[in-house]
Amino acid sequence: MIKTTIKNIVTCCTLLFISACDAGNDNNAIWRKLNLNNTVLLTLPHGKVVIELAPQFAPQHVAQFSQLTKQGFYDATKFYRVIDGFVAQAGPKDGSEKDKSVPILAMESEWTTDKTWSFTQVQTQDLFAQQTGFKDSFAVAANPSENKAWLTHCPGTLAMARNNEADSASSHFYFVIGQAPRYLDRIMTVFGRVVYGMQYIQAIQRTSVVEGDYAVDHRDFTAIVKMQLMSDVPETERLLIEVENTESAAFSERLTKRRVRESAFFYKKPPPVLDVCQVPVRSRIVTTK
Amino acid sequence: MIKTTIKNIVTCCTLLFISACDAGNDNNAIWRKLNLNNTVLLTLPHGKVVIELAPQFAPQHVAQFSQLTKQGFYDATKFYRVIDGFVAQAGPKDGSEKDKSVPILAMESEWTTDKTWSFTQVQTQDLFAQQTGFKDSFAVAANPSENKAWLTHCPGTLAMARNNEADSASSHFYFVIGQAPRYLDRIMTVFGRVVYGMQYIQAIQRTSVVEGDYAVDHRDFTAIVKMQLMSDVPETERLLIEVENTESAAFSERLTKRRVRESAFFYKKPPPVLDVCQVPVRSRIVTTK
Repeated sequence: MIKTTIKNIVTCCTLLFISACDAGNDNNAIWRKLNLNNTVLLTLPHGKVVIELAPQFAPQHVAQFSQLTKQGFYDATKFYRVIDGFVAQAGPKDGSEKDKSVPILAMESEWTTDKTWSFTQVQTQDLFAQQTGFKDSFAVAANPSENKAWLTHCPGTLAMARNNEADSASSHFYFVIGQAPRYLDRIMTVFGRVVYGMQYIQAIQRTSVVEGDYAVDHRDFTAIVKMQLMSDVPETERLLIEVENTESAAFSERLTKRRVRESAFFYKKPPPVLDVCQVPVRSRIVTTK
Repeated sequence: MIKTTIKNIVTCCTLLFISACDAGNDNNAIWRKLNLNNTVLLTLPHGKVVIELAPQFAPQHVAQFSQLTKQGFYDATKFYRVIDGFVAQAGPKDGSEKDKSVPILAMESEWTTDKTWSFTQVQTQDLFAQQTGFKDSFAVAANPSENKAWLTHCPGTLAMARNNEADSASSHFYFVIGQAPRYLDRIMTVFGRVVYGMQYIQAIQRTSVVEGDYAVDHRDFTAIVKMQLMSDVPETERLLIEVENTESAAFSERLTKRRVRESAFFYKKPPPVLDVCQVPVRSRIVTTK
């Protein structure tokens, strides 16, 4: 690990394999431009974060979250429940007028698949699903025997919080900041993921401390400076991101190389399996203008 | 997730189940005091971190790391390779006299088990091992068919970096800061884990950026202010930690409750399985004096 970066090896192999790196709409393009209407710019006191929303998987959640974002609903709200290794959760003051003003959402935590449904498969028979993989750059899990698929909880996942009832989410949301809590799959609505600035999400002030430690003063909780749809951000301030097209042959090739670990660094080969939440889906900045 | 904290539920259930919370040496004590000679205080510019070393699993690595720590070897060295979602790696300047002065270590990445060997089992047949569980509060994986067991890479794991050759580690080390890179198991020597202050490890300056982003100036890399064995820290400045005794009946009970998810929050029960890297092993501060 001193001089040999596993990720670099994979990238390097991919670059050798691929002769062009054009972004575009064709299925084999390596990079995919984000739709500005489905992209959120979250400004934190210590950095900027970009989120891709997933209206194709959770349309009502994305519609409501986008609408609230456009209204400036989240500006100045705080991350009030931040547990290291688990989640960073934000929203308006519980039970406040603002909180109660938002309509309740019906769960959109999974969908029914048919014979035509497909995705880029990563693994079969992990602990929580018959299959895992990627669809539109989102980590997905599926149980073909039930004709069901769902967005799965990985680090960087954005999902809506709720009370005990299934259909009780409204505006409170959380980012996963620790080892994938896959047991929340199918019972929480995942509707986006961090595509840039995860290090700033990881630096959000924890609100929960271990027994015996000093409590964190609520005035020190991390506040959202501003949350905007990227299409509403003035052009000169936009952060334009492209993400890997997980439907491309290049991405499949990268998965294969990651699985077999050909580098000399792996003097003993690990099991040829992949944890879908441990496979990086790369992003790049096209321009900051 | 708004009002119902999964971890709180589990804690609560455990507290109901357990009538005493004494620390001690008996096998059923809920908490275990750390041995100050196997505990490291890592002072970062933004917070203090406590690490438990594992001489019972990687004796030579712990001996060398402890010796270097006692000498002040790591003071003022930097985290020069920090990749979000992967690892934060530190050590002296590559190829420097200081770097070359340290003896090379032989791999201690797994051990042979016999019939008498036991651990607190968490799961069978995960992606990377026949069994997973805990031993002395460390996450462990095992393949009984090969009579082998090993410390597994989870978030917070401390391991020694190396070059391509198996036996090439010396002083460079890394913390896992993302989804468990289990494919590094058995080919890297894990020799400790963070038991306090993981949020400060997560806040270490990333040195790697996405394509198109500004490079991070090396002057901004996070430096180690001081690294000391806790036994060498003046008594008034010690951070005394206890960790959950993973061999206790209480911990096994907690595992069971975590697996079955009885809370009403789980209106639909997830698969009754556990990812060993997603099971919290709690710590508490006994005193900061």
